[in-house]
Amino acid sequence: MIFTRRIYQTNISLEEAFKIWLEFISAFKPLGPEEIPVVDSLGRVTAEAVQAKISSPFCHASAMDGYAVRFIETFGASETNPVRLKLHEQAVAVNTGDPIPTGFNAVIMIEEINLVDNCIEITEAVTPYKHIRPVGEDIVQTELILPENHVIRPVDIGAMLSGGNHKIMVRRKPVVTVIPTGNEIVEPGAPLKTGNIIDSNSYMIGNLVIQWGGEFRRTEVVQDNKELLKQKILDASVSSDLVVVLAGASAGTKDFTPNAVEDLGTVLVHGINIKPGKPVLLGSISNKPVIGLPGYPVAAHMTFEFFGRPLICRLLGIEPAEAETMKAMLSRHVASSIGHEEFLRVKVGKVGENFIATPVGRGAGALMTLQRADGIVQVPAMSEGIAAGTEIDVKLLRSKGEIENTVVCIGSHDNALDVLANYLKKKFPSYSMSSAHVGSMGGIMAIKKSEAHVAGTHLLDEQSGEYNIAYINKFLKDVPLKLINLAYREQGLIVRKGNPKNIKSIEDLMRDDVVFINRQPGSGTRLLTDKCLRDKNMARENINGYDKEEFTHMGIASAVMSGATDTGMGILTAAIALGLEFIPIANERYDLLIKKEHLGMPMLQALLQIITSDNEFRSSVLSLGGYGVSDMGKAVYEQ
Amino acid sequence: MIFTRRIYQTNISLEEAFKIWLEFISAFKPLGPEEIPVVDSLGRVTAEAVQAKISSPFCHASAMDGYAVRFIETFGASETNPVRLKLHEQAVAVNTGDPIPTGFNAVIMIEEINLVDNCIEITEAVTPYKHIRPVGEDIVQTELILPENHVIRPVDIGAMLSGGNHKIMVRRKPVVTVIPTGNEIVEPGAPLKTGNIIDSNSYMIGNLVIQWGGEFRRTEVVQDNKELLKQKILDASVSSDLVVVLAGASAGTKDFTPNAVEDLGTVLVHGINIKPGKPVLLGSISNKPVIGLPGYPVAAHMTFEFFGRPLICRLLGIEPAEAETMKAMLSRHVASSIGHEEFLRVKVGKVGENFIATPVGRGAGALMTLQRADGIVQVPAMSEGIAAGTEIDVKLLRSKGEIENTVVCIGSHDNALDVLANYLKKKFPSYSMSSAHVGSMGGIMAIKKSEAHVAGTHLLDEQSGEYNIAYINKFLKDVPLKLINLAYREQGLIVRKGNPKNIKSIEDLMRDDVVFINRQPGSGTRLLTDKCLRDKNMARENINGYDKEEFTHMGIASAVMSGATDTGMGILTAAIALGLEFIPIANERYDLLIKKEHLGMPMLQALLQIITSDNEFRSSVLSLGGYGVSDMGKAVYEQ
Repeated sequence: MIFTRRIYQTNISLEEAFKIWLEFISAFKPLGPEEIPVVDSLGRVTAEAVQAKISSPFCHASAMDGYAVRFIETFGASETNPVRLKLHEQAVAVNTGDPIPTGFNAVIMIEEINLVDNCIEITEAVTPYKHIRPVGEDIVQTELILPENHVIRPVDIGAMLSGGNHKIMVRRKPVVTVIPTGNEIVEPGAPLKTGNIIDSNSYMIGNLVIQWGGEFRRTEVVQDNKELLKQKILDASVSSDLVVVLAGASAGTKDFTPNAVEDLGTVLVHGINIKPGKPVLLGSISNKPVIGLPGYPVAAHMTFEFFGRPLICRLLGIEPAEAETMKAMLSRHVASSIGHEEFLRVKVGKVGENFIATPVGRGAGALMTLQRADGIVQVPAMSEGIAAGTEIDVKLLRSKGEIENTVVCIGSHDNALDVLANYLKKKFPSYSMSSAHVGSMGGIMAIKKSEAHVAGTHLLDEQSGEYNIAYINKFLKDVPLKLINLAYREQGLIVRKGNPKNIKSIEDLMRDDVVFINRQPGSGTRLLTDKCLRDKNMARENINGYDKEEFTHMGIASAVMSGATDTGMGILTAAIALGLEFIPIANERYDLLIKKEHLGMPMLQALLQIITSDNEFRSSVLSLGGYGVSDMGKAVYEQ
Repeated sequence: MIFTRRIYQTNISLEEAFKIWLEFISAFKPLGPEEIPVVDSLGRVTAEAVQAKISSPFCHASAMDGYAVRFIETFGASETNPVRLKLHEQAVAVNTGDPIPTGFNAVIMIEEINLVDNCIEITEAVTPYKHIRPVGEDIVQTELILPENHVIRPVDIGAMLSGGNHKIMVRRKPVVTVIPTGNEIVEPGAPLKTGNIIDSNSYMIGNLVIQWGGEFRRTEVVQDNKELLKQKILDASVSSDLVVVLAGASAGTKDFTPNAVEDLGTVLVHGINIKPGKPVLLGSISNKPVIGLPGYPVAAHMTFEFFGRPLICRLLGIEPAEAETMKAMLSRHVASSIGHEEFLRVKVGKVGENFIATPVGRGAGALMTLQRADGIVQVPAMSEGIAAGTEIDVKLLRSKGEIENTVVCIGSHDNALDVLANYLKKKFPSYSMSSAHVGSMGGIMAIKKSEAHVAGTHLLDEQSGEYNIAYINKFLKDVPLKLINLAYREQGLIVRKGNPKNIKSIEDLMRDDVVFINRQPGSGTRLLTDKCLRDKNMARENINGYDKEEFTHMGIASAVMSGATDTGMGILTAAIALGLEFIPIANERYDLLIKKEHLGMPMLQALLQIITSDNEFRSSVLSLGGYGVSDMGKAVYEQ
């Protein structure tokens, strides 16, 4: 087999690429109209102006429950000289909305009459047209109800129907065909073999299409075969308004998309200086737009927003809604390489009066970082980074209201936190909890800098043998706070099923045939490891893999399960979750640290209510295995 | 027939009603789950936590296009001492995402090697795991992907699929059955007889249900028959999660809803002290919620938001999204009666740096005022009104961005403005134009007070015979502005087809058998009428209907067409639109007044581009009839 690799054709800035793309798509007109019933038009876009065909009210109508009268016959009525009007002849009962009988020209409210001897008795004259809604009061025939290019809301449906329209012309939905490519790609739900990748991207991109008002179609997965791919792209370009090819646009050996598009039409852009999202392809086949998206999900999502969305909006005749933005303070320094425009995902939290943005993972493949992000921060191509404390603009992915109702938890990772996050949302749907896993010390520092409401921490003090309090005294002296126990948990060495390397104690880490994986500095688990090593006088240099780090217990367990490493320090729960074995080392206390000034916030009250008194939550944590909940919710320390 | 009328059972505040309702609905649990494919889950709500069933990546994978190697075999490589690794044996080509072959533990990027003699040549050693995405880097098996009660987005679909979920449990959609009632109610599209009302409310309410995530069902229109209505309500209460009865809840003779609900279950609230929306009914039938909505569309829409939305959200396990709010300055005094909490519809415009809120019509039936509103302002029950210039909180119905992109046009009404509004949206989808019709003088004052970008005006100066300029000199002296002609138009007396009263000139208004309808003071048309009367020495007191006022040309034409009045002064275009006849009185110039400081705004540039050079727009205006466009777009005056 001959490998043919490509070099990116272009490697231009996002701005240049966007200019080329906008010039290309500006030649497209909004799509032609299709006629649909008004009652089914929610969210569709008008393809022509909608005018009232009839007036509303359609005739003079009563504005009150009462009696229609001739105003001239009410003259002279007063308290001392009431006037009687004969029912049916001089006074006709009408309900709100009823048409005014011919010849009548005012309405008297039900509350203002007495019924006497088949008459109504009134004590006051009325003026002409009193309580009458004249024809056309709401909508006048021929009036413009909706302009062209208007996105239809429920109230518009009401107005169109009232104005006598029951069918209207709307824009046809832009058809977007998504073509997943690659021998390794399999359908969701299919059995997985090593190297398989589930085709999640098609459906993520397709549902963006649906969300933006288009119609999503998807072909079967196309194997790595250029001619087959060409045929699929060609077919799709005939039947769709936009063709999206997933993956295959970078410079790998099986990246046939650029060649295929070149053969069939024109490549406009290939390769853009952005992170994530470099290997994007923009092209045209017989004047139909084609977008080749990167295979990495975050890159695919972001670049489809950049290029797919404006096109779909253009075809619908609407403008993309501007994302909400806000100012926030960057919590830590972000380094960036000159030459790439970068789009950072950040978590945003409101702690005290400040909105704090904390960057999350930067990998193009890390979908969960996008899924959990609250916003995106743009780092210009010419920047070497952004200093901590800088005020930055954040393009929001969740509403400001949701962000304000989010408990920000920064610190050590624990599986029970996932359960807590779920219970908070389950029991109090208006609140969320977001966690960033930076280790126990990172949590304490986040509390110190007011970047978090809650820090999860399990820092063992070697002198006292106590957890956390010594560190609070050192770093958070004089800060009023409470330390609340979440759980006790078993720490130990996680090993593969059957313990093939026969690891029995911490001393086995010195063996040549054992590969260890460590936690990051500042984590309580790292401190525990280091304490064990010092207690046994073991030298770090002699441990294979001491310098290789993971950030979570599940990361450690995952690395062990995969066989990449033989053992690592972690909690029993993580071992149980992945069906691994465990050599116990310590039983430690895992606490939540909260400043007193935050304790009164309703969302923190809700969180504490779950921890202190929700038996269902307690059972869920116990069912994970490896937890002791005897002190759950107890304030173990306060100052 | 015996009329039986009801008095409202309760007449409580919105706050009290809301408290009773919340207490009632707080007993409802979120709806049970149904299993659906993840790929179809956009916008649905999770009914249980979604956890990763597998890790992603599923195995160690290459993070780059390049070659998988054993790091130990790269030791010692340098520029002066390159190392060669045999293809297939020591170096295996991998594309991004490919699994790392067993035994290999690092990847070298394609850019960093040379292919020589069936080998790759490298000049630098690599570290273990370089460019390898370890198993679980993105998602670790058992990790919480989504908590319960989460509204699913495209990125969530990607994450769930990547985590090995292809079916999930979501909340069943709450079923809402809407029952339209009343003998006068007809289906959209059915032929209309006098007194008929098109059932627009069912579909407006039903589409709110859809928008909020529920399932909308609708019964046929139920005639005014209590037993029939009871049966329909009972049936619906069995098959739905919420029953909505449209109209029939006020105190009219045919308002059977309260009795029906009382017979079947419990009336919780009947009658609330709010405007619009007083005759609301809240009830329970065998513990199924029932809402009786007012027949007036604005009242129905607003009260369904108050009471229907929280229930639907409760059943879905989510919180209603908070509406965006903003501060704005009230442009004119609003009077309010003590004892009713009132919800004012307002237009909001950004003129200069200020957001100005202008109240629009207040009738409960005026659906177009809600359809055109930008926001809602709450006037407390204990308030007698709000003074002009007060800063108020506006709950937005459109986004702030849309409001900022709206040309605010206040002044005289002209049908060509409707056409202009449509062309602006048609040609420049990001811009809108909103019009408030307060007469020419009102327009000039709005420009003076910086409440509008554009004022439409046609004020005849009796001395000079000129239009508009004398008034500008008087009220806007020293304000830099431009006066741009929109069109010339024919003013005259509008009469019914065949001119049954044989009206020939303005003098006929003095006849006893002729009923006139006037325009409001401050309108150019009123000035024209008054000038004609003075010219002919005609006394206002002798004109039937001089004191009855309409606010638009179409309103005048509509009143004439309905037979309520015989004639009124208006533009030829309005007469043509409704198929009426016309006696010409004057040919007047209708101009647009714009401050120079606003002329440079892109949205005003877009508007002027249409007026000055869009032939399609010009033709559309001409096709209305009654317009001269010889000076369209010409600056007739500037200062």
